Amino acid sequence: MSDDFQNIRKKLLDITKKKVSESVSKDNMIINAISNVEELDKTINVLSGRLREWYALENPEVEDKIKDNEHLVSIVLDDSGEESIMGATFDEDDEKALKAMAVATSGLIQTKQFLLIYLEKTMKEFCPNVLGLAGVTIGARLLREAKSLRRMAILQSGTIQLLGAEKALFRHLRSGARSPKYGHIVNHPVVSNSKTVNRGKAARALADKLSMCARLDFFNGEYKADFYYDELKKKFN
Amino acid sequence: MSDDFQNIRKKLLDITKKKVSESVSKDNMIINAISNVEELDKTINVLSGRLREWYALENPEVEDKIKDNEHLVSIVLDDSGEESIMGATFDEDDEKALKAMAVATSGLIQTKQFLLIYLEKTMKEFCPNVLGLAGVTIGARLLREAKSLRRMAILQSGTIQLLGAEKALFRHLRSGARSPKYGHIVNHPVVSNSKTVNRGKAARALADKLSMCARLDFFNGEYKADFYYDELKKKFN
Repeated sequence: MSDDFQNIRKKLLDITKKKVSESVSKDNMIINAISNVEELDKTINVLSGRLREWYALENPEVEDKIKDNEHLVSIVLDDSGEESIMGATFDEDDEKALKAMAVATSGLIQTKQFLLIYLEKTMKEFCPNVLGLAGVTIGARLLREAKSLRRMAILQSGTIQLLGAEKALFRHLRSGARSPKYGHIVNHPVVSNSKTVNRGKAARALADKLSMCARLDFFNGEYKADFYYDELKKKFN
Repeated sequence: MSDDFQNIRKKLLDITKKKVSESVSKDNMIINAISNVEELDKTINVLSGRLREWYALENPEVEDKIKDNEHLVSIVLDDSGEESIMGATFDEDDEKALKAMAVATSGLIQTKQFLLIYLEKTMKEFCPNVLGLAGVTIGARLLREAKSLRRMAILQSGTIQLLGAEKALFRHLRSGARSPKYGHIVNHPVVSNSKTVNRGKAARALADKLSMCARLDFFNGEYKADFYYDELKKKFN
């Protein structure tokens, strides 16, 4: 009897250890991945801006027409290298150097897309409710600011509402500036699509449901994110 | 006779136009390329720093030993994916995401190297003397700050000495802070390898020769950079 008990105890301990280690590592994976996505985003902007400037020498007319940076990268990649009427002459080496920048930037765009797919897949297993209600980027950012799913599950919904607004919050505490109303969730459709007067209420309600999502996910509860989402949409959008 | 004159005039004009267009465009190529190299450098630092952080979860012992960021990128690329004793478990997806970041970063490192080779080749034709005395990165930066080889050729050597120190110079003019002694050329071996007391003199002499290099290059003069370089080394190093 005592042996049996010891056995069961050991097995439960092992399972717990495994769960803890898995959970710690998935939190960290998600946090690293979203920070990498953000860094890639910045980098893609800067490099495609530089590419735009360089390409404008050769093809000012086209550069002027394409406003979107990522679109411009693909234009440069496909460009046959004939200069336009107003453009400067690029020789073969210039052309290759410009293309090398376009290839590098396009590689970063692909890596970002790959990481977003990875994030979605990982979160679908690890925190399906947070993913379902918050979406990939807002969900991962909330997890990062909360430090882990475990901590997010025990945070009050008022705190979740402000995750991502830490700077503004401390400014408020220090200097009495206006207190922030919401952090990352300001970009969530439930908040951004609601009427201005309802935005505070919508943020509060969303944070409330997100807190429940984190708890459901941490304690392996059922999937209720879609249900919550519909509820919120009906109420605020 | 008048027809002949008109013909010659037209031909000369065409040659001049071509030369101007070529010269304008090479200046711009070099300026764009060096700015891209700098941007890539920053980006490689940031992304390999992020990669380091992520990789440390799986393999803290190795991460700790490799100080150089670019070296770490190649380690991650070659890593077989077995976690170390202290590391967290990475599943196949985690491994792929981490590798994707390493591939992207390594792509940027290669692009930077490619652009440096392109720069060297371009400058060897366009401004061999500036290249020979200043080196690729310092030479290209001086050209950028001077706006063009033509302008660099007419700048006083005292101005060349300060190219790249514009911020410190304006601070000096505005607030009476210490005036800067040198700009980009502070990183040149002739200056950085000279004794501290001689550094000002070395910078002045180097700027002087650089000014002559720019003139030689702009007016298609002979190649004298190596001769100047030896002279400066004998005097200051």
